[in-house]
Amino acid sequence: MRIESPREFERLGAVRIYGLQKVYELDAGPDSATQEEEDSVVRRVSSEAINSIERQMAIVVPVRNERLKLIEGVLVGIPHDCLVIVVSNSPREPVDKFYLEQEAIKNYCRFTRKQVVVVHQKDPGIAAAFAAAGYTEILDDKDLVRNGKAEGMIMGTILAKLMGRKYVGFVDSDNYFPGAVNEYVKEYAAGFHINQSDYSMVRISWHSKPKVVENSLYFAKWGRSSRHSNMFLNRLVGHHTGFETEIVKTGNAGEHALTVELAMGIDYATGYAVETFHYVHLLEKYGAILGEGDDASAPASDMHHKVKISQIESRNPHLHESKGDEHVEDMIAASLSTIYHSRLCPESLREEIEQDLQRRHYLKEGDQLAPMRVYKSLDRMDFNVFGDKASAVIKVSGQTHTTVAPGATASAPAAASTSSSSA
Amino acid sequence: MRIESPREFERLGAVRIYGLQKVYELDAGPDSATQEEEDSVVRRVSSEAINSIERQMAIVVPVRNERLKLIEGVLVGIPHDCLVIVVSNSPREPVDKFYLEQEAIKNYCRFTRKQVVVVHQKDPGIAAAFAAAGYTEILDDKDLVRNGKAEGMIMGTILAKLMGRKYVGFVDSDNYFPGAVNEYVKEYAAGFHINQSDYSMVRISWHSKPKVVENSLYFAKWGRSSRHSNMFLNRLVGHHTGFETEIVKTGNAGEHALTVELAMGIDYATGYAVETFHYVHLLEKYGAILGEGDDASAPASDMHHKVKISQIESRNPHLHESKGDEHVEDMIAASLSTIYHSRLCPESLREEIEQDLQRRHYLKEGDQLAPMRVYKSLDRMDFNVFGDKASAVIKVSGQTHTTVAPGATASAPAAASTSSSSA
Repeated sequence: MRIESPREFERLGAVRIYGLQKVYELDAGPDSATQEEEDSVVRRVSSEAINSIERQMAIVVPVRNERLKLIEGVLVGIPHDCLVIVVSNSPREPVDKFYLEQEAIKNYCRFTRKQVVVVHQKDPGIAAAFAAAGYTEILDDKDLVRNGKAEGMIMGTILAKLMGRKYVGFVDSDNYFPGAVNEYVKEYAAGFHINQSDYSMVRISWHSKPKVVENSLYFAKWGRSSRHSNMFLNRLVGHHTGFETEIVKTGNAGEHALTVELAMGIDYATGYAVETFHYVHLLEKYGAILGEGDDASAPASDMHHKVKISQIESRNPHLHESKGDEHVEDMIAASLSTIYHSRLCPESLREEIEQDLQRRHYLKEGDQLAPMRVYKSLDRMDFNVFGDKASAVIKVSGQTHTTVAPGATASAPAAASTSSSSA
Repeated sequence: MRIESPREFERLGAVRIYGLQKVYELDAGPDSATQEEEDSVVRRVSSEAINSIERQMAIVVPVRNERLKLIEGVLVGIPHDCLVIVVSNSPREPVDKFYLEQEAIKNYCRFTRKQVVVVHQKDPGIAAAFAAAGYTEILDDKDLVRNGKAEGMIMGTILAKLMGRKYVGFVDSDNYFPGAVNEYVKEYAAGFHINQSDYSMVRISWHSKPKVVENSLYFAKWGRSSRHSNMFLNRLVGHHTGFETEIVKTGNAGEHALTVELAMGIDYATGYAVETFHYVHLLEKYGAILGEGDDASAPASDMHHKVKISQIESRNPHLHESKGDEHVEDMIAASLSTIYHSRLCPESLREEIEQDLQRRHYLKEGDQLAPMRVYKSLDRMDFNVFGDKASAVIKVSGQTHTTVAPGATASAPAAASTSSSSA
């Protein structure tokens, strides 16, 4: 991959937000004898460098009632050496959709020897592991993991750690173009390669999102929701640096990846707010804006970390299945809520957000924007306890990779993940 | 890339047509210590194996009045180590579109150091080289290369040979997805790796071609034209083997690649017929069906060649710019014409083709299907003379790669193509 060096960045405390990086070649070739200058404004990331990150990366694919053809296409696009973690919340009644997914993926893995873990979000074994480890806030009143994509992502993240991976990336399961999925993963890898840090995050800004308009395709650049999130996040950053900025382009980036160490250390908002909250929370925790004693802020001893946010503009348009269930107004409100309710948010910005939502008749005057549920970071749980319990439930392989019923014995995943899956 | 071994093939004389191969992973990773069996039904082609073919491959991109954004996207998708040959037939009046293309590509190459040759189809220097080499049939009454995509492809092919490449592949310039272009090229490379032969051809069958139908996307598998070409080509093959077959799936494959040696040895039809004619002509020349003395047939001494046609089903849908100028009926007629006018075509098949075209009111009863213009193979020209003349005109580089005006001196391309383009 050949990718531009970021031309600018904003820094707040330990957080660096890098400007959008343009991709020039999807495949810039292998390591070569003719060395190019490392200080060039356009960086070549060799296939070997990309692959060495991929070998340490898990890709989490949240699935909910997706067509099997699309899921298979996404697996086709994920580079072989990534571990894939499919977290499904598909219904098991009246038709057991999860069983069909497992079967299709198992069949696919027979041909590819790809390492895939398939778990159901409502797996009682995983829920019991969360409970035993003391992370009960993610459980519902039936003691199972709550519904929601954010909850599936959290589950995928902890499993990525359990499987010993250093990086975790997210890819949606409804992408029509395996080549776009492939690009996202390579961009995650390129981002981590360029911005080496244990506290690194890579976020993708879609090149465009084709829409059917008047019976032809229109390649829209920004959705309404992204425009809103980015604008208000930039106001927030600008307020604290004193300089107006347009640095944030990925306030709503569903396609993102982060080091497992960072992923374990941050809080998560739920619903549509999860991606925007990354920015808000990182600034709260590592931005050195809140007072040192503030419990939203990291202890001074943690401020030496280099928290790096890369933003990369993908080259493929993002063409995903349109289920017609995108509630744009709800998405906007959820994203803005994370900013609104942050202690970083100045009164003037709060008023702007209120006015914006009132103008679009989302909020009535006098009503207040509801806060989003926030999960505290995963590093508060007893990971060893979680690992002991969950290991018995997880099975990974290019050959057999179904979720074992709770209670069944299975080899420890750490061993399974390193074994080559021979025929 | 991980790709299925062909499950079947049809053989006629020296020609083997392999069944459609499915792709399981776009990126199956690098060479690994854990060796997988070479005789597996699904083959892993490592990134190193793919790259070693790419280093010997030229990708020809015919351009005509294309939007610069789309051309750049196609270049983004072509792996770095391929030589790119852009053959443009864009107008130079009233706006010099070719100049704009050169400028955009030159700018792109400044960032990527990609090796790109840009020539205009009407370049008088190249035309003079064709004339001097005795290949005058490609010239029009102004002694310039004729209009037409096939003519641009022929020009690209001979330039690929001039630049010392072993393989030449074709990619359209109007593809919206760089990731799809990337996939096609990797599939060419995988096909050549698996079917090693100096007389090898790889043809892509699109996964699907999304169309806007009633304000949503429909992923059509086969166009009307492909269906027709494949059906009649299969009848032709079946007639000569005595077994009904569905082996041919790529009768109209615009995305295809072949060894330069094979490309130099075959005739070319023009217009919409070029791809279908590949099959007809290869069967005429190497199928051992026509009598040995027949001048369409290769001499007996050439029949030891292994002429291999691989067909690979791409995973990305093919989403290209819809200019609304596809004349499906003309495409069908042109494709069928190559079968109809072949001496391989039995009388019964000729009648079927006539009836088909009459039923669709393309041909009136009593009218005859017009034959397509056919260019004789490039190996009939004096290549050394062509090379001497054309070398002075061609310039390649990741830095400067404009077409030099005829008469200007330039270093020999063979040297330029191997030099690393240092800043």
